[in-house]
Amino acid sequence: MKALVLNCTLKASPETSNTEALARVVMTQLERDGVAVEIVRLVDLNIRPGVKSDEGHGDEWPGVREKILGADVLILATPTWMGQMSSVAKRALERLDAFLSETDDQGRTPAMGKVAGIVVTGNEDGAHHIVATGAQALIDVGFTVPALAWTYWHLGPGPGPDYTDTQQAHEYSDTVARNCARNLLHGAKALAAAGDFPPQESP
Amino acid sequence: MKALVLNCTLKASPETSNTEALARVVMTQLERDGVAVEIVRLVDLNIRPGVKSDEGHGDEWPGVREKILGADVLILATPTWMGQMSSVAKRALERLDAFLSETDDQGRTPAMGKVAGIVVTGNEDGAHHIVATGAQALIDVGFTVPALAWTYWHLGPGPGPDYTDTQQAHEYSDTVARNCARNLLHGAKALAAAGDFPPQESP
Amino acid sequence: MKALVLNCTLKASPETSNTEALARVVMTQLERDGVAVEIVRLVDLNIRPGVKSDEGHGDEWPGVREKILGADVLILATPTWMGQMSSVAKRALERLDAFLSETDDQGRTPAMGKVAGIVVTGNEDGAHHIVATGAQALIDVGFTVPALAWTYWHLGPGPGPDYTDTQQAHEYSDTVARNCARNLLHGAKALAAAGDFPPQESP
Amino acid sequence: MKALVLNCTLKASPETSNTEALARVVMTQLERDGVAVEIVRLVDLNIRPGVKSDEGHGDEWPGVREKILGADVLILATPTWMGQMSSVAKRALERLDAFLSETDDQGRTPAMGKVAGIVVTGNEDGAHHIVATGAQALIDVGFTVPALAWTYWHLGPGPGPDYTDTQQAHEYSDTVARNCARNLLHGAKALAAAGDFPPQESP
Repeated sequence: MKALVLNCTLKASPETSNTEALARVVMTQLERDGVAVEIVRLVDLNIRPGVKSDEGHGDEWPGVREKILGADVLILATPTWMGQMSSVAKRALERLDAFLSETDDQGRTPAMGKVAGIVVTGNEDGAHHIVATGAQALIDVGFTVPALAWTYWHLGPGPGPDYTDTQQAHEYSDTVARNCARNLLHGAKALAAAGDFPPQESP
Repeated sequence: MKALVLNCTLKASPETSNTEALARVVMTQLERDGVAVEIVRLVDLNIRPGVKSDEGHGDEWPGVREKILGADVLILATPTWMGQMSSVAKRALERLDAFLSETDDQGRTPAMGKVAGIVVTGNEDGAHHIVATGAQALIDVGFTVPALAWTYWHLGPGPGPDYTDTQQAHEYSDTVARNCARNLLHGAKALAAAGDFPPQESP
Repeated sequence: MKALVLNCTLKASPETSNTEALARVVMTQLERDGVAVEIVRLVDLNIRPGVKSDEGHGDEWPGVREKILGADVLILATPTWMGQMSSVAKRALERLDAFLSETDDQGRTPAMGKVAGIVVTGNEDGAHHIVATGAQALIDVGFTVPALAWTYWHLGPGPGPDYTDTQQAHEYSDTVARNCARNLLHGAKALAAAGDFPPQESP
Repeated sequence: MKALVLNCTLKASPETSNTEALARVVMTQLERDGVAVEIVRLVDLNIRPGVKSDEGHGDEWPGVREKILGADVLILATPTWMGQMSSVAKRALERLDAFLSETDDQGRTPAMGKVAGIVVTGNEDGAHHIVATGAQALIDVGFTVPALAWTYWHLGPGPGPDYTDTQQAHEYSDTVARNCARNLLHGAKALAAAGDFPPQESP
């Protein structure tokens, strides 16, 4: 089994990414359970605006897309800005929109059979909303979102420290992160064993 | 396999429910595939405000809850009001919140192992938002939401006719509804074959 | 100037309402600034499902609606359940939907000229989402939402104590609540001085 | 009075922008009422990721920010992708986040006193959600959103034509667009006449 994390921080390398720090808790548990895990920091790449799989002009999404196609588990990891996912996360979802026109001869998108989860950090409130909008978009293009396949961290209310600034409340988020990893793997194995999704009627 | 539809229309029986009409397309496909399906119209019952499994005072949620516990597939079917799910749908989700404190000795909620889907009708825009908020809440309490496990219908923009007022655009929504049924069943069978979700660490 | 708070807690009187406790901080500031303020606890009333101004069968919304018509400022105060507003809050918004068909001879809804704000408490994340969905619905029916006309409180991440259980982080939420009151009053006075909104074209 | 439209299409010039086409209906009405209106197509500029007012490395946000500071009315105009605002719109909101730390000596953000509206096009459902998340973010940084200060267009359900592909249902969206313009101008004038928002307590 393979997993891919899309780190959707707004901060370019080598700045510390709080989102990556919490995502790594999920990744470590996946690795303990035998999954090969990779993480990609999208802001370091040239991910062009658009809704096609290759937008040209040096677009680096095609390489990310290949990794997604090769993974059984996709994790959307994003910071919270304005109570919402980052523009980098939204860009990734837009690019996944292309899957809807890349169906196989039975009408299945390339994501059908894969599972997805969501990791959210922030210095403020917004995580449930991001899980909602992230899950909806991922389900829309064919991912399955297993039970409790998310984790989040922030201290509330109002702007506060970042995840890597403090150990406060890590215990909750890290525990939930490990459950997230286990539930993603369980879902991925269940879908792999079940074979292809049924043929889809073309609307 | 058993499926339960929560019809969250605001209209009491015997008024025509557009939400039920579209839900029945999903139900018919599930029945064709051998699933026993039941539908409950929540507004006809006394579903008390609260977040416990039994709120007393004639609360009729406990009976609904029993049906949910007995089903492999749950479908949240709701109209769109103000671009959002109905207050009846929100009430049902609040009552499901109790699942979080009703875990088994391995920390699993009663919904873990079940799948959920979402059906939305309306006389206006709002369906994607309802799929987002519905999916998030259902995943939060332990349901798995399979690929493309939703359908919706409305004509846009601005207020328009209801689903049962016209045949316009039924073909899209009905086709997607049948795919929704197939994907829910595929997910439910996959989870059933995979056995229990892994033990959950207590946060 | 008059203000009305809709307390959308799920808890019937005389249980302690955390939502009311934070709303009272807004109310106290409004009163200091000369506004007459009233609060209504909707769960104690029979607010019938529907989208008309009077749903019969003992419906107590008409009395609430009269208070809204008499107020310059409306505050939607709600707890957070599943990261979303309460079903009681959603019910109130549905009932306000009737305003869209109760326009004056220039096409203006009864809310045009009034301002609205939002108060959110919870034992978990969700406030920004509630401000978003609350503001959208209130703007949809004709309220104006002034700058920073909200406050919220919860400790994150994961379920935690309620507002009245602790003094932690009250300072942030209470300060923001007083600003919310000031901004609502500024907006209400500005709209009152400006006279009627322009005639609306009928779509 | 001056208005600025942020066109958040994903398509670079000179491709036809449906979002601009609907935004121009709002703009034309504003101009009829004496407002000087400008439109900026953000995807043609280098708007860097981040939450500061100047992110360096050729960042072209500072020029956009100057135009926002000079305007009384801001209009966020965005297409709908995955039922949500575009990544370009989300990027603009992130950059506006900087306003929260650029307050005057009375704690007011640079947006306080300005109004904002939202224009949404799409080939599918999602507009109410975008109005919700857009309004919340704009209110968060200090804009006031007047009654019914939005318009949207799409045909539902499922993917369909774009706004400029057809005349279908333009009448609704264009009428609502003109009301949006009138309500924005009314709100802007009301706030201008009312003077500064009250001093804000620092949380």
